Amino acid sequence: MIAGVIGATGYAGAELVRLLSGHPEVEKLVLSSVSFEGERIEDIYPGFLSRVSYPLLKAEDVISSSDVVFSALPHAVGEPYAAACMEKDIHFIDLSADFRFDDDEETYSAWYGKQYKYPELHKKSIYGLPEMNRQKIKEAAAKGKVIIGNPGCYPTAATLGILPALGSAAQEGGTIIVNAVSGISGGGREPSRSFHYSECADSISPYKIASHRHSPEIARNIARFIESSHPERQAQKIIFTPHLAPMNRGILSTIYIPLRDEWRVTPVNSNRPQSKEMEIKTEEILNLYAGFYKNEPFVRMLPKGVTAAANRVRQSNFCDICVSLDINGSTLIAATAIDNMVKGAAGQAVQNMNIIFGFNETAGLQAIPILF
Amino acid sequence: MIAGVIGATGYAGAELVRLLSGHPEVEKLVLSSVSFEGERIEDIYPGFLSRVSYPLLKAEDVISSSDVVFSALPHAVGEPYAAACMEKDIHFIDLSADFRFDDDEETYSAWYGKQYKYPELHKKSIYGLPEMNRQKIKEAAAKGKVIIGNPGCYPTAATLGILPALGSAAQEGGTIIVNAVSGISGGGREPSRSFHYSECADSISPYKIASHRHSPEIARNIARFIESSHPERQAQKIIFTPHLAPMNRGILSTIYIPLRDEWRVTPVNSNRPQSKEMEIKTEEILNLYAGFYKNEPFVRMLPKGVTAAANRVRQSNFCDICVSLDINGSTLIAATAIDNMVKGAAGQAVQNMNIIFGFNETAGLQAIPILF
Amino acid sequence: MIAGVIGATGYAGAELVRLLSGHPEVEKLVLSSVSFEGERIEDIYPGFLSRVSYPLLKAEDVISSSDVVFSALPHAVGEPYAAACMEKDIHFIDLSADFRFDDDEETYSAWYGKQYKYPELHKKSIYGLPEMNRQKIKEAAAKGKVIIGNPGCYPTAATLGILPALGSAAQEGGTIIVNAVSGISGGGREPSRSFHYSECADSISPYKIASHRHSPEIARNIARFIESSHPERQAQKIIFTPHLAPMNRGILSTIYIPLRDEWRVTPVNSNRPQSKEMEIKTEEILNLYAGFYKNEPFVRMLPKGVTAAANRVRQSNFCDICVSLDINGSTLIAATAIDNMVKGAAGQAVQNMNIIFGFNETAGLQAIPILF
Amino acid sequence: MIAGVIGATGYAGAELVRLLSGHPEVEKLVLSSVSFEGERIEDIYPGFLSRVSYPLLKAEDVISSSDVVFSALPHAVGEPYAAACMEKDIHFIDLSADFRFDDDEETYSAWYGKQYKYPELHKKSIYGLPEMNRQKIKEAAAKGKVIIGNPGCYPTAATLGILPALGSAAQEGGTIIVNAVSGISGGGREPSRSFHYSECADSISPYKIASHRHSPEIARNIARFIESSHPERQAQKIIFTPHLAPMNRGILSTIYIPLRDEWRVTPVNSNRPQSKEMEIKTEEILNLYAGFYKNEPFVRMLPKGVTAAANRVRQSNFCDICVSLDINGSTLIAATAIDNMVKGAAGQAVQNMNIIFGFNETAGLQAIPILF
Repeated sequence: MIAGVIGATGYAGAELVRLLSGHPEVEKLVLSSVSFEGERIEDIYPGFLSRVSYPLLKAEDVISSSDVVFSALPHAVGEPYAAACMEKDIHFIDLSADFRFDDDEETYSAWYGKQYKYPELHKKSIYGLPEMNRQKIKEAAAKGKVIIGNPGCYPTAATLGILPALGSAAQEGGTIIVNAVSGISGGGREPSRSFHYSECADSISPYKIASHRHSPEIARNIARFIESSHPERQAQKIIFTPHLAPMNRGILSTIYIPLRDEWRVTPVNSNRPQSKEMEIKTEEILNLYAGFYKNEPFVRMLPKGVTAAANRVRQSNFCDICVSLDINGSTLIAATAIDNMVKGAAGQAVQNMNIIFGFNETAGLQAIPILF
Repeated sequence: MIAGVIGATGYAGAELVRLLSGHPEVEKLVLSSVSFEGERIEDIYPGFLSRVSYPLLKAEDVISSSDVVFSALPHAVGEPYAAACMEKDIHFIDLSADFRFDDDEETYSAWYGKQYKYPELHKKSIYGLPEMNRQKIKEAAAKGKVIIGNPGCYPTAATLGILPALGSAAQEGGTIIVNAVSGISGGGREPSRSFHYSECADSISPYKIASHRHSPEIARNIARFIESSHPERQAQKIIFTPHLAPMNRGILSTIYIPLRDEWRVTPVNSNRPQSKEMEIKTEEILNLYAGFYKNEPFVRMLPKGVTAAANRVRQSNFCDICVSLDINGSTLIAATAIDNMVKGAAGQAVQNMNIIFGFNETAGLQAIPILF
Repeated sequence: MIAGVIGATGYAGAELVRLLSGHPEVEKLVLSSVSFEGERIEDIYPGFLSRVSYPLLKAEDVISSSDVVFSALPHAVGEPYAAACMEKDIHFIDLSADFRFDDDEETYSAWYGKQYKYPELHKKSIYGLPEMNRQKIKEAAAKGKVIIGNPGCYPTAATLGILPALGSAAQEGGTIIVNAVSGISGGGREPSRSFHYSECADSISPYKIASHRHSPEIARNIARFIESSHPERQAQKIIFTPHLAPMNRGILSTIYIPLRDEWRVTPVNSNRPQSKEMEIKTEEILNLYAGFYKNEPFVRMLPKGVTAAANRVRQSNFCDICVSLDINGSTLIAATAIDNMVKGAAGQAVQNMNIIFGFNETAGLQAIPILF
Repeated sequence: MIAGVIGATGYAGAELVRLLSGHPEVEKLVLSSVSFEGERIEDIYPGFLSRVSYPLLKAEDVISSSDVVFSALPHAVGEPYAAACMEKDIHFIDLSADFRFDDDEETYSAWYGKQYKYPELHKKSIYGLPEMNRQKIKEAAAKGKVIIGNPGCYPTAATLGILPALGSAAQEGGTIIVNAVSGISGGGREPSRSFHYSECADSISPYKIASHRHSPEIARNIARFIESSHPERQAQKIIFTPHLAPMNRGILSTIYIPLRDEWRVTPVNSNRPQSKEMEIKTEEILNLYAGFYKNEPFVRMLPKGVTAAANRVRQSNFCDICVSLDINGSTLIAATAIDNMVKGAAGQAVQNMNIIFGFNETAGLQAIPILF
């Protein structure tokens, strides 16, 4: 089976090349790059030397010779390639935001400043968060070629930390706060002041407060899940604040979910450490989450006492989750950790490919996190 | 004027030595260290060579020859020194938590596992956050010798981000969330697994979720301020989650404060970027904060478009604050940044000394933040 | 095939567990830990959760049920286990320094302060640098069970950068300087001031100048290679200076080798950038090295213009090498990069296992370096 | 006294602004910036807020209203400003390389690719390393206005580590190797791939091996010092290899100087730790260096057992030096540490200003290094 990667020299593209090169079902890769056409991937990333060696071609060459095409291009340029793939009858997995909003062009346009050029493609595209849409992807793939809008990194980390609470634990209509921190690779390979070493090392700061493009994606995921799985429940409000921290990879989301009354514990004194009663409730929450994800190959509920940490999922496709009850007994605190380049981008894209083709869902994604 | 430092070889102690060595009113320092008694401070911190040179004596020697004593000892060992200072009629500024809870021994004991040995000292001690208690400190110092409970690092960053909202903007009784990230120096100089380079570099994770000792201190600050300044208003609930990030110094707190109705803006669509109306409200919030802090020498309200960042206050006594309105128009997002070793510890202690002695409040604290 | 790891909870031990868990010929691991006996490896390293799960037993249990035993214990405690393995007729691969000095007990004792307890074991042990001793290891393994003294991290990086020059390019009797920089994981998992985050982050410094234990190991390697491969040539002197830099993993060695006359180029003016003639000579040096390593699966000669970098070999078993000619035309500058935990410890141990058992030498070691 | 800074918004320029703002003799600054003309320095560096506030003007405005002009422009653009300053009869201190090569236009052109436009200015310019040229600077300033070529960061760290050995200890004609590591701020404020966080964090690598522009500057310093102070001695050869390490600031140079016979110690066995005799010789070397620098306010000879470390000089104008004898007894190993932005750039420029104006040489440069 031949996999193609358009935009192979950006960080997400290169990570796809790394993962697909070790995939047991992928015999060969075909790669393209606008910036480095004519060179080879191992010239651009010498880390590939002796392991991976491919020329960088044109996008057209990729599409004409692949069984599935991954697009790791920036936003707003990939639609024609999606169209070409559909025409050529091959699957298209897009790592940009272009196909994440289905037919909600209005929201997409409001945040990305572009119109849909092929509206019909967006009607058939599927948001590729397997933990939400696995069945949908499978069914679509059984019927024909699919377009996957691979989720954003923050939305992946945020959504997975919230979903299990939406059925019963979360207070209906309550405001869920996602305070997320990303490693610098999330900014991509293009140099800029924000990601210049001397500007971001040894520091941390929020950015695009109340204005990051991943806000509507997270909100949409939560709304969609409630509509489909718990249509009787009210919508939740979402607040999302991204931060940049001096680490290469990883996203750590700390999520605050107000609990509905029956999940709350009234502390004798909220100025005291957790009571026994609160510990018991914390365990119930842990069980709720563990039950929700019991069949998920890439979600790890951390045991009591272990907190989610960016370095514990590095290079793996895992999403680690830990849960706590706040000191007032009224808010669930979930923390999730992913590798932004794997579960937050290339790894999830491969997971989607595995689902589409009926491969073992963990094929090519069994790396043990690097430990330190 | 002679300043003494007990516990001078821990990080907070050494930072005190650094700051006091450049203080225009301090002629001489007297230092003690249990671990390194008999050595010299510049042996322990060779960075001091050619600039600072003092022997490390016993605590008793410090007390017997100083006009003010700073204690940078761990929690629960400093009370006898406070008593000795009162007896000798000199001021005592304690950087541990021992004198932060006034006469609320119950809360102190619940979190620190110790009883007060000199309860009467705690009745007279003052919580040394100048932005809350400057007047109280001045008045007490005018009457006699004082004991200052110098605030914790997280409580300083959190409290300063919340106070201005308590008078009118914050929803009464609402839950305020403080999501805070600290640099590793906050863990002190003693080696341990949590602060071992290979365990915490290139990562970020929460710790002591719902169980950190700074929780009750933050909650107490907020409660006290409401009681004294806005007694008609209900109490707020506080959620505090600390994280560790790979930076040497700094605390970045991202604070979520639900707004009361008149401060809210109803967005046409909460799935859209901020409206004009929301931008106007954000400016009102900025003005509210700027007004509150207009006479504070160490609080900087950042202009629109600049976010608080740990590296922008490094080595200074500043607390930087930026404010935003969330995308739903109902929550104030304030981010504050301090250097945990300066405004979060030694710098604030020097600021308290300046207030006590009637020095210019910024004396010895005029360093420009290191820029990169 | 069952592999055992004694001392599985230190960094080298855990890295062995990570690599062996993905090895195609290893069916099962048996692990021991003195510090954590009775717990499980995934409790100590939660990164292993869902991927690796083993109890931590006693060393005896490991030896009694393994086909090969890796020892990742500290220096000077492993000899009895080596003896037990020989008695039980299984291979023993020691990651400590105990078996790196063959029968040269005097040097070992001078540097490690211990005597040999089982001198005969040292006579049969083999220094496990495959690029020097592959044949020797193969032959010994064909005849019986072997004891491998797995090389130190610095000696691996240094030796591989020097060997190709010893046959003809290096000036006989000249002094070779190895200026090496290690990531902090080289200091192991035990907390100490030197590896405390706040002490070593955002800095670099040399340590144990002229007194590091890896000095005699490097010198011995060079001497041994000359004796065996170029007995007509004089010995070289070695200077080795280790440094600590703020990175998790990796060693970067910059090596200065004075050239013999026929390899020198006389620059017209040594105050000018490289001449054409010097570039040609540089290429000859590159060819010399490339020829020397042409059959080595884990040594990568970098193409012209690419320099060795610690992050380009991360998590792989590669040793990257780049070579240059100094501006005076008289010194070869080689830079080598390895992952100190892989080629510098656990990966090389697995490579040795592969050679012993006749597996494909790259089995279990085919990971592509993590790219960023 | 009014100080002007041309190119105030680059890193060296901003550091000048920071240092000059705290200088007791400087009443006012006048700043210019090509990129940000019309804005204010505190808009570009919000860390300056509440401390430093100046408009960014044109270079002409700076020259017309200053008593001394610092130029922090890139190479090859500052000459006309130097000419204008001479015409206006004010001192000019250039942080670029333009005035570092005196009348040796050939070397300058070979490395920087530009011709001198005002050759006569280069005849009168002085290389501003006070430890070499203090007297020369003083004398010139007594006679008229001066042009200072402020030294490069690497040349400062390298030269100071070598000078004391040139009189007697160094082997005449021997090759001195400077293996230097710089923090990323050395690359300036302009974003580029080399200094992009994800490319250089958590790694180390050499760059511009045998081709860095600071090579001829170091070589020239050594040659000039020998010519002037020890004209009877032969020249030394210099090898210089720069590296980039993941730290914000700092340069650490490890320098290998072959010793002449009378300074050597023949080890009984070079495969053994240092002998008593070698320790004694090390102390002699330390004394040699300490004597050489005994009146230097910014050179600190570290006591035995303390090694030079980049974080120990941070933000100070110090150059720390430690010395050792190699294990073979024949090479002096000196390690030097400076803050590349202070002693390696802006601080040294201020030191030069102090010398020119007859201020206390440490005025404005008395900051204690930040300790952690």
